[in-house]
Amino acid sequence: MDQTKYAIIVAGGSGVRMGSKIPKQFLEMKGKPVIMHTLEAFYRYSPDIQQILVLPDQHIDHWQQITEQHRFDIPITLQSGGDSRFQSVSKGLGLIQTPGLVAIHDGVRPVISRQLIQRSYETAAQHGSAVAAIALRDSIRIMEKDSSRAADRSQYRLVQTPQTFDVNKLKEAYQLGEQDHFTDDASVWEAAGNHVTLYQGDNQNIKITTFHDLVLAEVLLKFI
Amino acid sequence: MDQTKYAIIVAGGSGVRMGSKIPKQFLEMKGKPVIMHTLEAFYRYSPDIQQILVLPDQHIDHWQQITEQHRFDIPITLQSGGDSRFQSVSKGLGLIQTPGLVAIHDGVRPVISRQLIQRSYETAAQHGSAVAAIALRDSIRIMEKDSSRAADRSQYRLVQTPQTFDVNKLKEAYQLGEQDHFTDDASVWEAAGNHVTLYQGDNQNIKITTFHDLVLAEVLLKFI
Repeated sequence: MDQTKYAIIVAGGSGVRMGSKIPKQFLEMKGKPVIMHTLEAFYRYSPDIQQILVLPDQHIDHWQQITEQHRFDIPITLQSGGDSRFQSVSKGLGLIQTPGLVAIHDGVRPVISRQLIQRSYETAAQHGSAVAAIALRDSIRIMEKDSSRAADRSQYRLVQTPQTFDVNKLKEAYQLGEQDHFTDDASVWEAAGNHVTLYQGDNQNIKITTFHDLVLAEVLLKFI
Repeated sequence: MDQTKYAIIVAGGSGVRMGSKIPKQFLEMKGKPVIMHTLEAFYRYSPDIQQILVLPDQHIDHWQQITEQHRFDIPITLQSGGDSRFQSVSKGLGLIQTPGLVAIHDGVRPVISRQLIQRSYETAAQHGSAVAAIALRDSIRIMEKDSSRAADRSQYRLVQTPQTFDVNKLKEAYQLGEQDHFTDDASVWEAAGNHVTLYQGDNQNIKITTFHDLVLAEVLLKFI
């Protein structure tokens, strides 16, 4: 039997790095805010996914304005975020009361294909966790005090989202509390003693952090 | 006194990964082969740079055809490549008979700004070596037998080209012979006991390995 599917879309960035007053999740690509492209991608994959959008408190008014302006009518649940990504995801998880699978996805990764979403839920259904990862295309070096040294790039993977998990086990992991080194959900999951299963991510699935990324993402949207 | 500047542009790829019969360095962006954009970037920065283009034997006829077709008239020295990147760079270095600084650059990184080229030669002039490196924008995991674990991304840098060096010291390093783990010139330089100096690379300076990269590079060209 199919498990209930949830998606928590985290959009907590302040836009500072972008040199823009508008937080990057609200910048427009093809006449529509980045975050709406992201939510639509999950909706197109399956309208049955229960989507939770986590936004910082101070952006909620803006969100409500733009949903009217763009006549955005995909059903989502809005949740105000916390001070960190950990806290934002934690608040999103707090809204989920039934078992299932939850995909955590960066709001600023709008170039997400059906295939990637499918791979994420299917891998998590089978293994309990599913973390998108891609091989390195460049050489990599390890920084040391005043120096650096070459490392073997085949031993590394770059991590993306969606990161998808069994809801109840992820909630348990979040209950153990925040640690400084948590940069994603895989690290929270792992700190609770769970095995992280990787699946093949997608080079196109870029995170928009600069103006160039926005331009690139707009081009990449044609290919998904 | 300014040192003589050389650039070895390595274009050894066969185009297999691209799913194209045309090797990727010869695919066109804005009506011009990728490799010509790369050579032009160095020429625009300074016409005094002595450029050596290293191409596989079997591509030399094609190169000569397209230089006529595109009326490409930037002065370069053509060199046939070897079986590996190490051997190709080594053959390129063999053409250099006077001291100076040599930038080794991937032919398939055409989106290279004046600033990046300048930074590379200036850093090498000061420190003897200059390797372009950028911080990781995604989380990273280390692969282990049947498993993987989170690593601290702040401890790593992704390496690009240009990688620029004192000519004579780089030639000495190449004379020590090829090792399996050499993936770039920094690793050759370092294996000879030299210190690798990193400088700030550029996220736009992408390596074209897929069709999407080609489309992206064409967009990014507008910004350099």
